[in-house]
Amino acid sequence: MAYTGKILVTGSGIDLTLLGPLEEAGNNIVARPKLLSPAELKAELRDAVAYLHGGEEYASGEALSTAELLKIVAFMGIGYESFVDVDAAKEHGLRVTWTPARRPDAVAVFTLGQIIYANLGIRDRLDERHPPQWTAATPMPSELSAQRVGIVGLGSIGTRVAELLTAVGCRVAYHSRTRKLAEGGLGLTYLGLHELAAWSDILVVLLPESQSTLNIIDASVFAQMRKGSILINTARAVLVEPVALANALRDGTIAVAAIDGHYRDESVNDALRAEFGPRLLWTAHVAAHTRQSMAAMVEQAVQSVLKALDNAPDENVAVGH
Amino acid sequence: MAYTGKILVTGSGIDLTLLGPLEEAGNNIVARPKLLSPAELKAELRDAVAYLHGGEEYASGEALSTAELLKIVAFMGIGYESFVDVDAAKEHGLRVTWTPARRPDAVAVFTLGQIIYANLGIRDRLDERHPPQWTAATPMPSELSAQRVGIVGLGSIGTRVAELLTAVGCRVAYHSRTRKLAEGGLGLTYLGLHELAAWSDILVVLLPESQSTLNIIDASVFAQMRKGSILINTARAVLVEPVALANALRDGTIAVAAIDGHYRDESVNDALRAEFGPRLLWTAHVAAHTRQSMAAMVEQAVQSVLKALDNAPDENVAVGH
Repeated sequence: MAYTGKILVTGSGIDLTLLGPLEEAGNNIVARPKLLSPAELKAELRDAVAYLHGGEEYASGEALSTAELLKIVAFMGIGYESFVDVDAAKEHGLRVTWTPARRPDAVAVFTLGQIIYANLGIRDRLDERHPPQWTAATPMPSELSAQRVGIVGLGSIGTRVAELLTAVGCRVAYHSRTRKLAEGGLGLTYLGLHELAAWSDILVVLLPESQSTLNIIDASVFAQMRKGSILINTARAVLVEPVALANALRDGTIAVAAIDGHYRDESVNDALRAEFGPRLLWTAHVAAHTRQSMAAMVEQAVQSVLKALDNAPDENVAVGH
Repeated sequence: MAYTGKILVTGSGIDLTLLGPLEEAGNNIVARPKLLSPAELKAELRDAVAYLHGGEEYASGEALSTAELLKIVAFMGIGYESFVDVDAAKEHGLRVTWTPARRPDAVAVFTLGQIIYANLGIRDRLDERHPPQWTAATPMPSELSAQRVGIVGLGSIGTRVAELLTAVGCRVAYHSRTRKLAEGGLGLTYLGLHELAAWSDILVVLLPESQSTLNIIDASVFAQMRKGSILINTARAVLVEPVALANALRDGTIAVAAIDGHYRDESVNDALRAEFGPRLLWTAHVAAHTRQSMAAMVEQAVQSVLKALDNAPDENVAVGH
């Protein structure tokens, strides 16, 4: 007989009608769409059997330690390591699942929009009453199809971005830990990370967050880039080392940066915002916030919860068994 | 022997190095990048043999009447009727040329950027510190690939936009005065204008300005559209009847509108801006402002000037012989 009970659901983008299968299995859904404090999270988890994590809160060891009925943290997204204390989850015998197979379209199209806006400087053009006086100091932008775009991370999202940019007519190259079969179909060039930075007019970061990708775009990468380059980071802020980013914005290496997500240290966000605000297209990790993308994630996570409560195997297990 | 003399060049986006062929032919270039007043334009034209029109000024009958040496107004763009008094040009025996064959990429990619921004509401997401609380009143956006996009005007730019949207995965239909061969290759559906408005989630206006397209998007068109639709007008403001637009924004038929260009009556612009500013992605007709697009236009216009001064025929003649 399957284990049942209270299921905590966090995050503001959850269509609760998609949780029907959990209720039908006899569970009790408690949805908390607003950001939970550490104390609130700990209190909510104390009597929960499962936790669908779609919010911005961090599931600390402290919060997990008293969750004696908890079987699973079903993280909705890819970068679970930043939102769940993995060591504590292991220690308490929890299963942590993720949703790696979500459809790439939402983040890919959002990324394309940020590339177009950054490349043409459209944000600066909004609400102008006359076209700008283009000068040598503020030249007319170059067309996107004339730009070289380097993609760091050729997973499903990076591949989709490469397809869209190829349709636009850009030259696209990429870097990833391993060369990809997909490059054959698209005719993409593989380059080392530093070579890619030197080659690109626009560098697009689309890696998952992990210990090995933290700060991967650092001063040595910016040192390869030309003045006036564009950085698009629609993965996680922390992939880009923030002091190196500030220096690159300050010395003009980076003209415009799009970032979807924040650094954990608010003082880092505040300092970047204060000094470079108008040159940042900065959003709060919303690229995957489309109805279709969220539905696909929620449906996967719901299936992971049902499997965990049934002690069934699950291909989306990231931590535990 | 070719006629030579002063050539007036207006507009802020002109790369003067592209005017070399005019200087080599013995002409004297006078560039006026800032907006000319009617009196300044009249004074500048009085001794000019050719006029490369790349600015926002209107070449009135008054300004043209005393330009006794003038042979040609080479308009850089498509909508010359709004910038040149065509009747006066005919009366004074002037040749007016345009640049209809410019490459569509600049405007098409700009349009795609505005479609993505409007569809996801990205402007509202900039500088937010947390993702929004999505509610029934402010729901998470639908993915662009799930939207139906109707294109009004399937010229070279409309066709390119249709290609890009097809790559994104949208369903695309179109309306134009005549059915186009291109629809076959892209598999686009042809609809009447009102049917297209009823079918579309996003309506994209890409017609040239003319007497027959002025106010073509009027109250009868908006009446067909569903609540919360998106309007993208990256052609000329005046294609959309402004009172009908205000009503459609007011009653929620149009959630967001992108407009690239202004109405000639500043009080119309001011009223729209005051009431609906945050829901307008409004730019000052800059979509074609890329180095590559402008270079292609300038090069065409330069050839038209050389032909006119040589009394040679020109396929880009719009008015005159």
